Amino acid sequence: MSLIVQKYGGTSVGDIDRIKNVAQRVKETYEAGNQLIVVVSARSGVTNELVARARELDPNPNEREMDMLMSVGEQETIALTAMALHAIGVPAVSRTGMQAGIMTDPAHTRARITEISGGDLKEQLDAGKVVILAGFQGHSNDGQITTLGRGGSDLSAIAIAAAVEADLCQIYTDVDGVYTADPRVVADAIKLDSISYEEMLELASAGSKVMQNRAVEFAQKYNIIFEVRSSFNNNPGTIVKEEAASMEDVVVSGVAIDKNQAKIVVSDLPDRPGTAAKLFQALGAAGISVDMIVQNIGREGKANLTFTVAREDISRAQKAVTESFPDEAAGKLFEASDIAKVSVVGVGMRSHSGVAARLFQALAEDGVNIQLVSTSEIKISVGIEPDDAEKAARVIHIAFKLNK
Amino acid sequence: MSLIVQKYGGTSVGDIDRIKNVAQRVKETYEAGNQLIVVVSARSGVTNELVARARELDPNPNEREMDMLMSVGEQETIALTAMALHAIGVPAVSRTGMQAGIMTDPAHTRARITEISGGDLKEQLDAGKVVILAGFQGHSNDGQITTLGRGGSDLSAIAIAAAVEADLCQIYTDVDGVYTADPRVVADAIKLDSISYEEMLELASAGSKVMQNRAVEFAQKYNIIFEVRSSFNNNPGTIVKEEAASMEDVVVSGVAIDKNQAKIVVSDLPDRPGTAAKLFQALGAAGISVDMIVQNIGREGKANLTFTVAREDISRAQKAVTESFPDEAAGKLFEASDIAKVSVVGVGMRSHSGVAARLFQALAEDGVNIQLVSTSEIKISVGIEPDDAEKAARVIHIAFKLNK
Repeated sequence: MSLIVQKYGGTSVGDIDRIKNVAQRVKETYEAGNQLIVVVSARSGVTNELVARARELDPNPNEREMDMLMSVGEQETIALTAMALHAIGVPAVSRTGMQAGIMTDPAHTRARITEISGGDLKEQLDAGKVVILAGFQGHSNDGQITTLGRGGSDLSAIAIAAAVEADLCQIYTDVDGVYTADPRVVADAIKLDSISYEEMLELASAGSKVMQNRAVEFAQKYNIIFEVRSSFNNNPGTIVKEEAASMEDVVVSGVAIDKNQAKIVVSDLPDRPGTAAKLFQALGAAGISVDMIVQNIGREGKANLTFTVAREDISRAQKAVTESFPDEAAGKLFEASDIAKVSVVGVGMRSHSGVAARLFQALAEDGVNIQLVSTSEIKISVGIEPDDAEKAARVIHIAFKLNK
Repeated sequence: MSLIVQKYGGTSVGDIDRIKNVAQRVKETYEAGNQLIVVVSARSGVTNELVARARELDPNPNEREMDMLMSVGEQETIALTAMALHAIGVPAVSRTGMQAGIMTDPAHTRARITEISGGDLKEQLDAGKVVILAGFQGHSNDGQITTLGRGGSDLSAIAIAAAVEADLCQIYTDVDGVYTADPRVVADAIKLDSISYEEMLELASAGSKVMQNRAVEFAQKYNIIFEVRSSFNNNPGTIVKEEAASMEDVVVSGVAIDKNQAKIVVSDLPDRPGTAAKLFQALGAAGISVDMIVQNIGREGKANLTFTVAREDISRAQKAVTESFPDEAAGKLFEASDIAKVSVVGVGMRSHSGVAARLFQALAEDGVNIQLVSTSEIKISVGIEPDDAEKAARVIHIAFKLNK
């Protein structure tokens, strides 16, 4: 008998038939003699509906009340999922985040888990019940409902798996696992059998939206092995785990595209120490994530800074930049243009030189102009014309023999 | 400064504009220098939607899970109402039933309140905040979410008013108050300025659906004076309170119609002691409320029993009756027909004779045939043809000078 945590996302429980489908899957695992904790998200669409309703009342809704509001999505799903299981003869009981003792800090709408008591989960499991747990939500130590932010249900699943020392943690989603590239772009993309936490993290930050980083980071920290797989078929998924020796043989595990980037060039900044710091401090204070950064030499005594941000942050970035240099003409030249980021990721990169060279050559041969480059230990990203993104991904996929 | 409890029902918070309207009303009361606890129901329609979804999964959903599911309706409304108040500058904070320490027995879907700690309500009020409290819900002492059953939000409001010793409790609904008759039937029906708990109870059981009885009974028990009024205008409502001396001058306070009744005649029962008890025990065990009862003398050695039930209970009543007399032909003659119940209610009835006579005469003069009669200390009900119900109400309204 194993103790298994399964997590089903919003599309997997999107309507009554899909909830029945989830129940059937849970039943199979249960009847194979396992103990199960099932973490579910809100039905897809529900969260957006609730946000829309809130914004109609208050464009800047209070975060504590947002958590009170948002947490109803998962509470609905846990009750419905438990009922669906009862209907097919599986004993099940639902638990809110608060009832399962998922304690967080009081940072509403983006709370961090501080402790998990589990409430009576173990007793319920030992009594033969499947426990249906609301993802995404917890409670602060003064009894307020909190939520964990985007992708929070993945985090709930990984964290509860750690807390109960589960034998297996399965993240069910609407894709079959982690691919060498987006199969919609690269037709012969291959599903990976396994991937390291680090690669998974770099892929996510490179625009491959299988899972949010916080859950993966948490899994890495507590060494929770998990599987990403589809709730719509029985194909094995991708196992995410600590880097294995054999992984290093593979130089590049995958290629990811993020088309939602903007390149910003700020010209005519004073060329003296502290200018860049001041600029990026201002962007940080405005809550804007900056990705790639390049400093060019500009005109006499002036510096140009080039960096990328998410496209929706352009106007806030402009505001932050102009406000941080109010007394001078400097930094007033602000140009933004759309850009796509294409990244190759792989732990094998560490021990193999020439990855960048092979990447640049492949792109050059296909006439793709590189505007920006940034690298991490296991990732190389290039900023290119958005129209070139798909072509670049296919070229790279071939260059690194990812289809083999 | 007064401490006021206001309760808004599902239609009063039915959509975003109505929630804004509620917020405006709350703001006025708050800015007049009062402390406020606002109890809200789920948006109208939400509860039915949730029930429908549950039944699609399981025709007999588990009651604990039903409570988990149903309680999201109110949780959504409290968050939205708090946001609507923030948007117009009123500090407000929402609380679930559990957070407000509304402790109940563990009878899911129909729990009874056992204790109210109030949680941090007093502190929030003293800090100048309006507290928005989820109606209809509480929690059992093992931390499970419970709901109070139909009309539960009224009960929440009355109970919290008792717990915090509120100065005033206002039940906002979609009617102006309690009328001498249904204004849709009797054009010159008059809104009552005040009514006693007992009359209110009898009117509700007589089919006048302003409020469910449990809340009124609770108010009577703890002597909580409350006002029933409309959330759509500023008209004063009806004060519900202990019987006042002056009330006795009014013989009849109102007339009520219940058209959802069925008359059942069970013939050929054995005419011996215990027959009626056996029959009504069976109906009671099946959860069927029996209203009026008449025993007729039947054929030789046989008895007929006539009684009324809610129309939707006919088939279950038939099952209960035939099963309770399985071994004999007795009780197999089961006839059901639609009937309307018309009732006059008034505490003054106690001290005035002749009410029944005046009632019967008024109906006779208008050619309304009485099939059944039942009386309580402050109510007389007659069972008549459904088609005669409206006419009967108008005739009675005139006969007792209720329009004066």
